[in-house]
Amino acid sequence: MAGSRYAYTRTFELPDPLLPTTFFVIRLDGKGFHGFSKAHDFDKPNDVKALELMNMAAKRTMEGKELMGECVIGFGESDEYSFVFKRSCKLHGRRQSKLVTLVTSLFTSAYVFLWPSYFPNSPLQLDELPVFDGRIVQYSTELEVKDYLRWRQVDTHINNMYNTCFWALVLEGGMTAQEANKELSGTISSQKQELLFSRFGINYNNLPPMFRKGSVLVWEDEPTPAPIEAASEPEAVEPSSSSTSAEPSPSASPAPLLTPDGRPRRNKKLDKKTVKPKRRVIVVHEDLIGESWWEEGGRGAGILQG
Amino acid sequence: MAGSRYAYTRTFELPDPLLPTTFFVIRLDGKGFHGFSKAHDFDKPNDVKALELMNMAAKRTMEGKELMGECVIGFGESDEYSFVFKRSCKLHGRRQSKLVTLVTSLFTSAYVFLWPSYFPNSPLQLDELPVFDGRIVQYSTELEVKDYLRWRQVDTHINNMYNTCFWALVLEGGMTAQEANKELSGTISSQKQELLFSRFGINYNNLPPMFRKGSVLVWEDEPTPAPIEAASEPEAVEPSSSSTSAEPSPSASPAPLLTPDGRPRRNKKLDKKTVKPKRRVIVVHEDLIGESWWEEGGRGAGILQG
Amino acid sequence: MAGSRYAYTRTFELPDPLLPTTFFVIRLDGKGFHGFSKAHDFDKPNDVKALELMNMAAKRTMEGKELMGECVIGFGESDEYSFVFKRSCKLHGRRQSKLVTLVTSLFTSAYVFLWPSYFPNSPLQLDELPVFDGRIVQYSTELEVKDYLRWRQVDTHINNMYNTCFWALVLEGGMTAQEANKELSGTISSQKQELLFSRFGINYNNLPPMFRKGSVLVWEDEPTPAPIEAASEPEAVEPSSSSTSAEPSPSASPAPLLTPDGRPRRNKKLDKKTVKPKRRVIVVHEDLIGESWWEEGGRGAGILQG
Amino acid sequence: MAGSRYAYTRTFELPDPLLPTTFFVIRLDGKGFHGFSKAHDFDKPNDVKALELMNMAAKRTMEGKELMGECVIGFGESDEYSFVFKRSCKLHGRRQSKLVTLVTSLFTSAYVFLWPSYFPNSPLQLDELPVFDGRIVQYSTELEVKDYLRWRQVDTHINNMYNTCFWALVLEGGMTAQEANKELSGTISSQKQELLFSRFGINYNNLPPMFRKGSVLVWEDEPTPAPIEAASEPEAVEPSSSSTSAEPSPSASPAPLLTPDGRPRRNKKLDKKTVKPKRRVIVVHEDLIGESWWEEGGRGAGILQG
Repeated sequence: MAGSRYAYTRTFELPDPLLPTTFFVIRLDGKGFHGFSKAHDFDKPNDVKALELMNMAAKRTMEGKELMGECVIGFGESDEYSFVFKRSCKLHGRRQSKLVTLVTSLFTSAYVFLWPSYFPNSPLQLDELPVFDGRIVQYSTELEVKDYLRWRQVDTHINNMYNTCFWALVLEGGMTAQEANKELSGTISSQKQELLFSRFGINYNNLPPMFRKGSVLVWEDEPTPAPIEAASEPEAVEPSSSSTSAEPSPSASPAPLLTPDGRPRRNKKLDKKTVKPKRRVIVVHEDLIGESWWEEGGRGAGILQG
Repeated sequence: MAGSRYAYTRTFELPDPLLPTTFFVIRLDGKGFHGFSKAHDFDKPNDVKALELMNMAAKRTMEGKELMGECVIGFGESDEYSFVFKRSCKLHGRRQSKLVTLVTSLFTSAYVFLWPSYFPNSPLQLDELPVFDGRIVQYSTELEVKDYLRWRQVDTHINNMYNTCFWALVLEGGMTAQEANKELSGTISSQKQELLFSRFGINYNNLPPMFRKGSVLVWEDEPTPAPIEAASEPEAVEPSSSSTSAEPSPSASPAPLLTPDGRPRRNKKLDKKTVKPKRRVIVVHEDLIGESWWEEGGRGAGILQG
Repeated sequence: MAGSRYAYTRTFELPDPLLPTTFFVIRLDGKGFHGFSKAHDFDKPNDVKALELMNMAAKRTMEGKELMGECVIGFGESDEYSFVFKRSCKLHGRRQSKLVTLVTSLFTSAYVFLWPSYFPNSPLQLDELPVFDGRIVQYSTELEVKDYLRWRQVDTHINNMYNTCFWALVLEGGMTAQEANKELSGTISSQKQELLFSRFGINYNNLPPMFRKGSVLVWEDEPTPAPIEAASEPEAVEPSSSSTSAEPSPSASPAPLLTPDGRPRRNKKLDKKTVKPKRRVIVVHEDLIGESWWEEGGRGAGILQG
Repeated sequence: MAGSRYAYTRTFELPDPLLPTTFFVIRLDGKGFHGFSKAHDFDKPNDVKALELMNMAAKRTMEGKELMGECVIGFGESDEYSFVFKRSCKLHGRRQSKLVTLVTSLFTSAYVFLWPSYFPNSPLQLDELPVFDGRIVQYSTELEVKDYLRWRQVDTHINNMYNTCFWALVLEGGMTAQEANKELSGTISSQKQELLFSRFGINYNNLPPMFRKGSVLVWEDEPTPAPIEAASEPEAVEPSSSSTSAEPSPSASPAPLLTPDGRPRRNKKLDKKTVKPKRRVIVVHEDLIGESWWEEGGRGAGILQG
């Protein structure tokens, strides 16, 4: 057959498996989001709707049938998102390019699809589309994975504190960008907190936890609905996304395609038939740096095992 | 600083460069498109709008500032697309995961964004999103790259002939899928052509070239518009996408966000200022298997050099 | 300078680091040792001198300044040797090809150098040189490394039992190779033990432990010599290689270039000056499959930590 | 079986193939040869016997059955050697670690084995063994491979000119190493030539070509011996190694285990039976930088093709 004459070119596709039992993280970063956020006039230093859109795209990524429930933690800040997989994950034969492109594509697809629900008055443009790059990183131990997430959360804190000061100086203090950067140069954390409080009356610790700690996505068993009421108004009795957080969420945006807690509206007839306990991904803004989140009784206890 | 304590986890990101001077191809494949195409009721054996959407997403990918004009050929069929880069491409330090995820994300973003223009009556659903995986393959010689494209085009031909027969037997001949597969089992190309002609009056060679040969995306210098008319109605004098093909395109779908030849509508004031000759990507449906397309005088002459 | 014109070819050397904190094993295998062992008339099923030569080449590899004491366990059987490195090993920036070629070359060099001490009457030939290939394998957990060594020790046991039966049937039982293989086909371990005992009077468990368990190389603090006696006759008070094993070693071959326990003879003046406790590699033939070797009190306790 | 319980650890051996049609070079470098060359009192700036030993170890490597004649060019200088393989080489499934360790081990084995023939009065020591590391590098085009060899030959020239000056200043000029380095700092090639001629009467271009150009190993058909004379004294009619060079070789060392041109002495009875034309590797010291060596009529014409 004619095909076989050129099919030799297929042998150039080389194998690229991860090691068999490493943990791995897939991290996505917005490409050129400086310009993109300007084009859509994102609030500074943090745009609540933009962050919630990231969270919902990530929730969709984790919950989707494509990943078969194998991603156990998500962590997002600004225009980046990390997805953590356990040692035992065997998805797609652990082929690196398969895994990293699948997650990148899934997240991008959800982000573009959900955009109009969050920015109905600022439609996307073909020549300024949201684009993400992805990478995949392997870790040998549970501690390394925890420390990876701590690294990202410390980064969230450092960036947020700097940006909060910077934009206060610019937007409220009337400084130029250059003046603001100079003012902040060399300052340590406590000096920035003092600056925010004394000049702008901002208590940094009262800022929304989503800004200060980023967003953590984890699985939770869905509460079993009471049989009768559930059929008529199931969403009404479910906790909203913000109430799953120990600290108040900065906003609750309308998302017509989703249930109040950010899940896709499903066909209820199908759902009723499944007997096994259902799980869903929730968004919280909690501290991962201390040990208590990971220890017995904490939300992340045992989350990386198995 | 606190950040440095966990920043060691960054050292787990290993380098993954391509060889410095290989050609490379990034190929995307629709993930689970069997179900996706059913959900949106794609025409069988080929859905013109679905193929044109693929082409426009690929055109946007090639033309975008993100790739800096470095992709020199695109080739698409069904739910897959290949993007070919020359030896000299130095984009993103030739980092493999960066390149493959960027192209995958860009294509996905354009596909979801353009969807409503092609399927206005069949909106996407959050739990059935279009998703693509990607891979990157290196080649050492120009011949191998040509043969890669020939492999894909032969594949297009074989699949299309089979599917055309299969769906004629099912949709017009009233067979079950099983009966149709049995009927076709072991037949060679000439037998399938005969079957189509004698039973269904279909002359295979008269089918739209997009179905038989797939779609080839290449760069073309834009015609220099006459200074005065161009200012008033530049698009009006430009050839439409279909006329760039040597053979007739099966349809010309309305795409409100695009110019008639599939480019994003731009701010004309900006465009006027650039002096250098402008290029754009066009879609053709031509034979890549013979030598003439690649030789002097052919559209692909010298396209892989440099 | 002229050099810079061609120096671009250096950029084709791609990085190949191991992950930062994996354990790793470098395993060497004799290449074409079937022919090599025939050419030098190795005893069947095991040649004591050939095994001891392997052990001494491995000891030299582990002890050498080239590896800076970073290899913590060696394991050898037949014509293969494994060298185990801890997570914390940073040798040569953990570059894979550097590490695997260095160990392969070092072992080969020692093997060829030591050959005449073990086979003085069967000199090597230029066209039948001993050659080894090497590979490097990463592991994420301590258990996996232990199981790797257990895999090799179980392999030693299975091969040795089969070969002991096979050569008894051939050399003492007068069978052809084909007859012996047929006789053993499908037998389990207990049947092979019974065969050895009932037909040839061999109690398998009394065979030398080096044959049954392979050879394990580990570090041991050298006994501090009493200051006066040590100066006059240091080797005389040191334990010989065989006595470090819990079970008797099958032989003690003369090795003129080495001390009785297989270390290179050194300049004693230099040694005296070093104050820190000295270590050396010893060869034992112990069970790694059970837990006791690895647990507190066992020789391997804590050997993979740090 | 017990083996299967631990055999999962084998799955950690990941594939590492080269691309299917790249050229590749395996380059070996002496590890710590500064100390090694001092220990054996190598002549400065070049030790003829040490270079010839490198050449004979490389010749053995190329000619050995292990590489099946697939290495087409060798190039050596100082304590490094490069082995070039063509695109079409399929040896060992093009597995990188297999190939690079095999060549490294083979070369090391030959070097240690041949040592006594070249340095009979300076035996090797167990704690100062010759060791080499290896790397493998892929190239996409013939020009890149040529330029790789040119890079090494330019390097040979630059190093040799510097070292020749340096050691003349030290050994004949009575300078310290520091003074000599200072004297040479910033000088260009013509100044070094002038220095050698005016102060030490050395005409650089008359130095042995092996020092100035390194050593090139290529295959040559053996001259077919006349049937009768060949049987009695085959070696007598063969050209010696030095006469195959266009320029005189600096020495012809006695190598009792080898024929005069550096091949292992073989069993003549076996050789007579083979009918196909025999090939052997010869050592020349020729210019690879110009085009003439590679062009039609040159020794390297077509050497990289196929």
